[in-house]
Amino acid sequence: MTGKPYAAIIGAGRTRFGELWYENPESMVVKAGLEALESVEKGLHRADIQACYLGSFMYQVTNKLGLVPGYISRELGLNIPMSQTEAACASSSSALHNACLAIRSGMYDVVLVGGFEKMTDRYGKIVDDLMFAADPREFDAGFTFSGLYAAMMARYMYDFGKGDDRCRIALAQIAVKNHQHAVNNPYAQFRSRITVEDVFKSPLIADPVRLLHCSPISDGAVAVVLCRPEIARRYTDDPVYIVASQQATDHVSLYSRTSTVEIKATRLAVGKALREAGIGLKDIRLAEVHDCFTIEECLFMEDSGFYRKGEGWRGIYESIESFQGGKHIPYVGDGWEVFVNVGGGLKADGHPVGATGLRQVYECFKQMRGEAGANQVDVEGGIRYALCHNIGGTGGIANVHILTREVTL
Amino acid sequence: MTGKPYAAIIGAGRTRFGELWYENPESMVVKAGLEALESVEKGLHRADIQACYLGSFMYQVTNKLGLVPGYISRELGLNIPMSQTEAACASSSSALHNACLAIRSGMYDVVLVGGFEKMTDRYGKIVDDLMFAADPREFDAGFTFSGLYAAMMARYMYDFGKGDDRCRIALAQIAVKNHQHAVNNPYAQFRSRITVEDVFKSPLIADPVRLLHCSPISDGAVAVVLCRPEIARRYTDDPVYIVASQQATDHVSLYSRTSTVEIKATRLAVGKALREAGIGLKDIRLAEVHDCFTIEECLFMEDSGFYRKGEGWRGIYESIESFQGGKHIPYVGDGWEVFVNVGGGLKADGHPVGATGLRQVYECFKQMRGEAGANQVDVEGGIRYALCHNIGGTGGIANVHILTREVTL
Repeated sequence: MTGKPYAAIIGAGRTRFGELWYENPESMVVKAGLEALESVEKGLHRADIQACYLGSFMYQVTNKLGLVPGYISRELGLNIPMSQTEAACASSSSALHNACLAIRSGMYDVVLVGGFEKMTDRYGKIVDDLMFAADPREFDAGFTFSGLYAAMMARYMYDFGKGDDRCRIALAQIAVKNHQHAVNNPYAQFRSRITVEDVFKSPLIADPVRLLHCSPISDGAVAVVLCRPEIARRYTDDPVYIVASQQATDHVSLYSRTSTVEIKATRLAVGKALREAGIGLKDIRLAEVHDCFTIEECLFMEDSGFYRKGEGWRGIYESIESFQGGKHIPYVGDGWEVFVNVGGGLKADGHPVGATGLRQVYECFKQMRGEAGANQVDVEGGIRYALCHNIGGTGGIANVHILTREVTL
Repeated sequence: MTGKPYAAIIGAGRTRFGELWYENPESMVVKAGLEALESVEKGLHRADIQACYLGSFMYQVTNKLGLVPGYISRELGLNIPMSQTEAACASSSSALHNACLAIRSGMYDVVLVGGFEKMTDRYGKIVDDLMFAADPREFDAGFTFSGLYAAMMARYMYDFGKGDDRCRIALAQIAVKNHQHAVNNPYAQFRSRITVEDVFKSPLIADPVRLLHCSPISDGAVAVVLCRPEIARRYTDDPVYIVASQQATDHVSLYSRTSTVEIKATRLAVGKALREAGIGLKDIRLAEVHDCFTIEECLFMEDSGFYRKGEGWRGIYESIESFQGGKHIPYVGDGWEVFVNVGGGLKADGHPVGATGLRQVYECFKQMRGEAGANQVDVEGGIRYALCHNIGGTGGIANVHILTREVTL
C-alpha cells in the first residue's frame, strides 16, 4: 500500500438483474439503497448520509427523465448534495470515482453511491439507444454494438488466432465459464449452464458474434455505502477499503483509435491503479471484469497485463481445459491465479448498464467478506486484493478500482 | 474566510450564445476550451490538464450522443480522467462542484471544466425535451416549463402581490434590467433594450408568463481552467478563488414540495455557502443568478435572504425605480447593494442549459479581474465577493459558488 485508502465500503445492496417489468428507476434505486443501508451491521440512519453519487446511462431516452438528484431527494427525504454521472456502461463506476474523491477531499464522512438502468421497457429500440455510447458515424455506417465488438473479435481472431480453432473455442468458453459462475448467484439474470456447442449453435448476431457471446439487456440497480476510512469501524467490524480509484479515457470511435484489439483506456487505468495500490497483478485474486461481449474479457486479460497481447485466448483456453473441478474456474498464468467474474459477469449476472460498475463492487465486497453464500469463491489464502474493471462503449472510458480488507490506518 | 479555497480559476473561455447553426457540441466545447487555455496569462499546455469535468443536460436526446468523455478525449488528444455530470440546467455548476472536490482531494493540480448545450437543432421538440427536468406526472398533466413557472409566478403574485400592480411591474422590470445589461456583452444572444410595456405586450405563453419573461433556447459552451490554489500564481498574477462550493437538492416535482414560492434548495445552498466563505450577504457585490423566468430571479432575492420572503418584488421595484442611471442597475436593500446578472443573465445572455452554470462563473471571473471591456461593472470599492447561483428544473437542485480574489494562502 502506497497511500491511505480513499474510502471504506460499509454496506451494499442490489436488486435482481433481469426483466423487472414492475419496477421503475426510483423503485429499483430505493430497493438497492435500503438494502445497502440495512446491511450496515452496526446501524446507519438515513440522515447520516451526507451526499449521493449516482450513475446511469440512458435514463433520458429510456425512461423520459432527467435531473435524477431531484428524484432521489424525494425518495430519500433528504436535501443533500447529489451528483449524476454518465459514462455509458461505466456510469456507476464513474460515480464511485467521484465519490472517492469527495470523501478524500474531507467534504463528506458518509455517502451513498447508486447505479441503475431500466432498459427492457424499450423493446427493440434499445439497440439503437445503446449507440449513444458509440460515434454517430459508426451508427450511420450501420453498426450496432454487437457489430463493433464483432469487428474487434474478428480482428483479434485474424491477428492472433491465425486459424487456430482453440482461439474461437476460448472466446466461447468465457461465456460458458460465466454462465457456470452465475448458477449459484440468486440475483443473476441467467442461472443456466451452457456449453461451447451451445455458443456455436446460438443465433449469429454480427459475424463472428453469436447470441451467447453477448451480455443481455437488463434492468437493475445497485447501491453501496462509503465512509471515511478512519471511521469505518463505527459502522462495521469488516470494512472493505478502496485503495485505488483510477480512470482513463480514449476516443469513443473505434475507427480513429490506433488499435481495435487493445483497449488503451484499460491498460492506462489498470497500470495507474496497481501503482496507486502499490501491488502487482499477482496480488489480485478476484477480478470483476467488463465482459459485455466475451472478446472484451479476453482483451482485459491482455490489456491488464495478466497475459501478453495476443496470448490471452491461449491462456484462457489452457486455464479452462486444465480446470480440475469446483464451483469457479480460475485463470492461471506465470505465478498467478485469478478468479474472473465469479458472479457471472455482465454475460450471466446481467448488464443494466448504469448499474454494472457498482455490481462489480457489490460482488467483490460480498466475496471478500465471505458473504456470498452458495456462490462463495474458494481462494487459497483468501482474497487479499480484488479489482473491478468497468468500461464505457467500446473503451472510450475505463474505470478501475482495487479493494482490500487489509489496511493499516 | 473560514477555510482555504477549493481552487483557483486561472482561465476562462466561452462561445457566443444563440442559434449557432454551424456548431456541434464538440466544436463548441473545443472553442470554449481553447479560449480558456489560451487565456492563462503565463501559459498552460494542453498536456498540463490532468482531468476534465463536463456538464451537459440533453445531449443524448438533442444530439444523439452519450459518453461525452470519449469525445473530449479525442478532441483534446488526451487520455485523462473525465466526468460528465447531468443536473438539468445546473449541469455545469454540478461539474464545477465535482471539480472543486477533486482538486481539494489532492488528486489533480490542474483541471478543465466545461459546459455545453446544443438545443436549437431540435426546433419545436425542445419544449418537450426540457420536460426531462420535471416530473413525468407534470408532463402528463400538460405542463411545459413555462407552465410550471407560470404556476409559481401566479401563486407568488396572489400570495404577496395582493393586487398591487407594482408586483406585476417588478417581474417585468427584471427582464428589462437583464436586457439592458446585455447591450454591451458581445457574447449575448439578445443585445436589444426592451421596456416594461414590451414585456406586457409580448405573446402570452402560459398566463401570467409572457414571452419576455422567459429565457431563450440557446446553443453555447463555456470552459474554465482550475488549479490548486497554492500553485495559481505560476499561471497568472490575478487568480480568482472559489471559496465556497455548495449544493442542495429537493423534489423535482413542484406538486410534492411544501411551497411553490420558495426554492428550498436555493435557501439551503446559499446558507451553506455563506457559512463556508465566512461572509455575509452584504459582502456579495455581484451575483449571477438563475433567471430562467423572471420570477426565479425574484425568488432568489428572497430565498438567499437579500429580501424577506414576499418582499422581493417590492425591493426590486424600488431599486429599479430609484435607479440614477449608468450601465448596470443594482438591487439595494438594508445596508447592501448587489449587481445581479450584469451580463444579461439567462434572460438576455442566453440559456444553453448545460453551459449556464459556468457562464455565470465566466462572467464573475472577467468582471472581478476588470476584463469585461465595455460591459465592465462599476462597483464602489471593487467586487470583493461574487456569488453564482444555478438551479436545475424548478429547483430540484441548486448549486452556489462564491468567488473572491482576496485569499491568504
